[in-house]
Amino acid sequence: MIPQKRPAEDLAATALEHKIAEQPALSNGSANGTGNGSSLAPLDASKLIITRADPAARPVPDEATACSGNETVCTDHMITVSWNSSTGWSAPELKPYGPLTLMPTASVLHYATECFEGLKAFRGFDGKLRLFRPDLNCKRMLMSTLRISLPGFDPAELEKLIIMLMSIDGPKWLPASRPGSFLYLRPAIIGTQPQLGVQTPKEALLFITASFMPRMDSPKGGMKLHTNPEDMVRAWVGGFGYAKVGANYGPSLLATNEAKERGFTQILWLYGKEGYCTEAGASNFFLVWKTPEGKTQLITAPLDDKLILDGVTRRSVVQLAKERLADELEVVERKYTIDEVIQAHKEGRIVEAFAAGTAFFICPVSQIRHRDVDVHIPMAQGDVGEYTAKIKQWMANIMYGKEQHPWGVVVEEQQ
Amino acid sequence: MIPQKRPAEDLAATALEHKIAEQPALSNGSANGTGNGSSLAPLDASKLIITRADPAARPVPDEATACSGNETVCTDHMITVSWNSSTGWSAPELKPYGPLTLMPTASVLHYATECFEGLKAFRGFDGKLRLFRPDLNCKRMLMSTLRISLPGFDPAELEKLIIMLMSIDGPKWLPASRPGSFLYLRPAIIGTQPQLGVQTPKEALLFITASFMPRMDSPKGGMKLHTNPEDMVRAWVGGFGYAKVGANYGPSLLATNEAKERGFTQILWLYGKEGYCTEAGASNFFLVWKTPEGKTQLITAPLDDKLILDGVTRRSVVQLAKERLADELEVVERKYTIDEVIQAHKEGRIVEAFAAGTAFFICPVSQIRHRDVDVHIPMAQGDVGEYTAKIKQWMANIMYGKEQHPWGVVVEEQQ
Repeated sequence: MIPQKRPAEDLAATALEHKIAEQPALSNGSANGTGNGSSLAPLDASKLIITRADPAARPVPDEATACSGNETVCTDHMITVSWNSSTGWSAPELKPYGPLTLMPTASVLHYATECFEGLKAFRGFDGKLRLFRPDLNCKRMLMSTLRISLPGFDPAELEKLIIMLMSIDGPKWLPASRPGSFLYLRPAIIGTQPQLGVQTPKEALLFITASFMPRMDSPKGGMKLHTNPEDMVRAWVGGFGYAKVGANYGPSLLATNEAKERGFTQILWLYGKEGYCTEAGASNFFLVWKTPEGKTQLITAPLDDKLILDGVTRRSVVQLAKERLADELEVVERKYTIDEVIQAHKEGRIVEAFAAGTAFFICPVSQIRHRDVDVHIPMAQGDVGEYTAKIKQWMANIMYGKEQHPWGVVVEEQQ
Repeated sequence: MIPQKRPAEDLAATALEHKIAEQPALSNGSANGTGNGSSLAPLDASKLIITRADPAARPVPDEATACSGNETVCTDHMITVSWNSSTGWSAPELKPYGPLTLMPTASVLHYATECFEGLKAFRGFDGKLRLFRPDLNCKRMLMSTLRISLPGFDPAELEKLIIMLMSIDGPKWLPASRPGSFLYLRPAIIGTQPQLGVQTPKEALLFITASFMPRMDSPKGGMKLHTNPEDMVRAWVGGFGYAKVGANYGPSLLATNEAKERGFTQILWLYGKEGYCTEAGASNFFLVWKTPEGKTQLITAPLDDKLILDGVTRRSVVQLAKERLADELEVVERKYTIDEVIQAHKEGRIVEAFAAGTAFFICPVSQIRHRDVDVHIPMAQGDVGEYTAKIKQWMANIMYGKEQHPWGVVVEEQQ
């Protein structure tokens, strides 16, 4: 798999690029991440085996009830696909939602051999069920699974499986009687080989659930961010901040919890001694400010140093703002520091700010605390800024079918 | 839990120190990591509920067979203890080894809310069964669980549970007829709350297994290390390299696999643009060299910047070398770079090197490749260096009861 003529010095540096480059040969199974050739079965959605749950067994709760407990309420079904390094991917199964069985020695429980995606399914005001740019989630999942040494797959097959799950569970769990509501889809891959010792798992499981999730895009008074302490860093250059792997999340909880105990919503993660602004909790972060010269800019951290997640919402915000706000503001992806933000605040140049991600959608930010300094951020419309509101509405219109747009992928439902 | 008078700027910086400082009040349950006071049940080994497996059901394989497959062979029993944030720790259960049941939404499968320990049980040449400094593993496990926002516990109670498991499974699985053999003990804590959303788990599970593990301390030709590529880093200052959390392991597999494909055993992880030597795979790394002035030193990376694991084997090597080799060499814990190692090699000053950890024990290192440079390391006795062999023998003598020493903790067995 690794060409022998490769110079010695690049070793794993380009491993991920190599693995992704192998993906064109997906149909013969070489995308399994093992480097083990053509005899392995690829992920194949057409082989889906369907075992239906009794539809009467579980009533659909209302949204408030579903989101009130300490347990995520999932739909009737889930999809599972097992993989092993000698045969490749098994036939996908769509079956009643229920527990997984793992040996105590399973890789994922010890070595964080895990990655996931998050996307939503929307019940449109036109009655249709849509996903939002699911191709991007599926491509990112491929990148994440290869980064964490789990098996690869053709992203288009994963997308088909997600659509199949919503096609079957959508009509009941996201009923046409609830336009404007959504479900949360969670594909994940975990290393299941029951063997201790730090090594690439020879067995894995892909699973997809659909569930309720609370709406988090309009917290009372806006989202309040606290910068991370200097001795606690989320991601680093040469790390894996750009991949949606479990290892980016668990370690962040300690700082997040302390911020919450102080009344803040999330951490604004800074990087390096310069204090570059990167992410807001597990969301991307956007700021609208005026430059000292008086130009209005929408600014967000860049992707090129691989510190932050290449968010689907982030990408969509950037694109919509460039297309629809070009007359009003400039969209800038560059490194910028917390000191620049504080200086802009002192000079009254901060216009508004928001976090962007699948879980928080577009969530207005009202405050940043950094050490002893509080940056209070305007929300021109009371609970949201003017540009934030515009972008949020455009996105929602696409998601809920008020605007027909290629990003809104309609799911054909099995009635 | 967090004193309100604390200055704003330290936020989570000292969160871990605070949580650990709370530990003296262990008996009233305040060590659960929730900050939720005295009504929570502490981890209590005296409440152990024992359900025995049929001892005839599973014969004990020989060591070679047990280590030949793709699945870890565990002993008859495991210990599990569940925890939730409203009641604390449940009564521990010792029961037949078998699968765990987790909901697909369990925290550990998505957010790497997991930590573990590794230690060995040894069948001595005097017939006794010993653990090696288990108190250190149990204390480190407390530090790891708090770093990853899982519940705390009294380390002495965990030690009692480990001893109970070996007391029951030791006689059969580490029989007196196999002096010089060992089992591997793996305590782990995972976040089990079945709720998506990045948050501290309100439910967790502590489990302990005992299993076979291959001997890895004498690879033919010595351990060969390849330095990591510049764009792939294991740990970083402000991260969690010092904690035994899953998030340190999965992300390292990509670089390790490529090194293995090139014929190397593990990665020698360098840090920073200076190229400081830190760890060898998941083991600590030791080098014996002569200084330019002709002094013999045993050198290893320091603990103070929290990049590397505070290994029990590492700590023991440092202590034994200071006590028993003081006339022959100086023990130095300081930052040193790969360039210093290469320079020493050029000048013929490298004496020997080894990796030190529970899994690899004391494993001679014969080569380091950094970019295009090969550092060939002497092994004075053919397959091991002189000091390496001495230290290894002293450690083995304590583990297997050839030397009576406080580090070798004898387990009273239930015959």
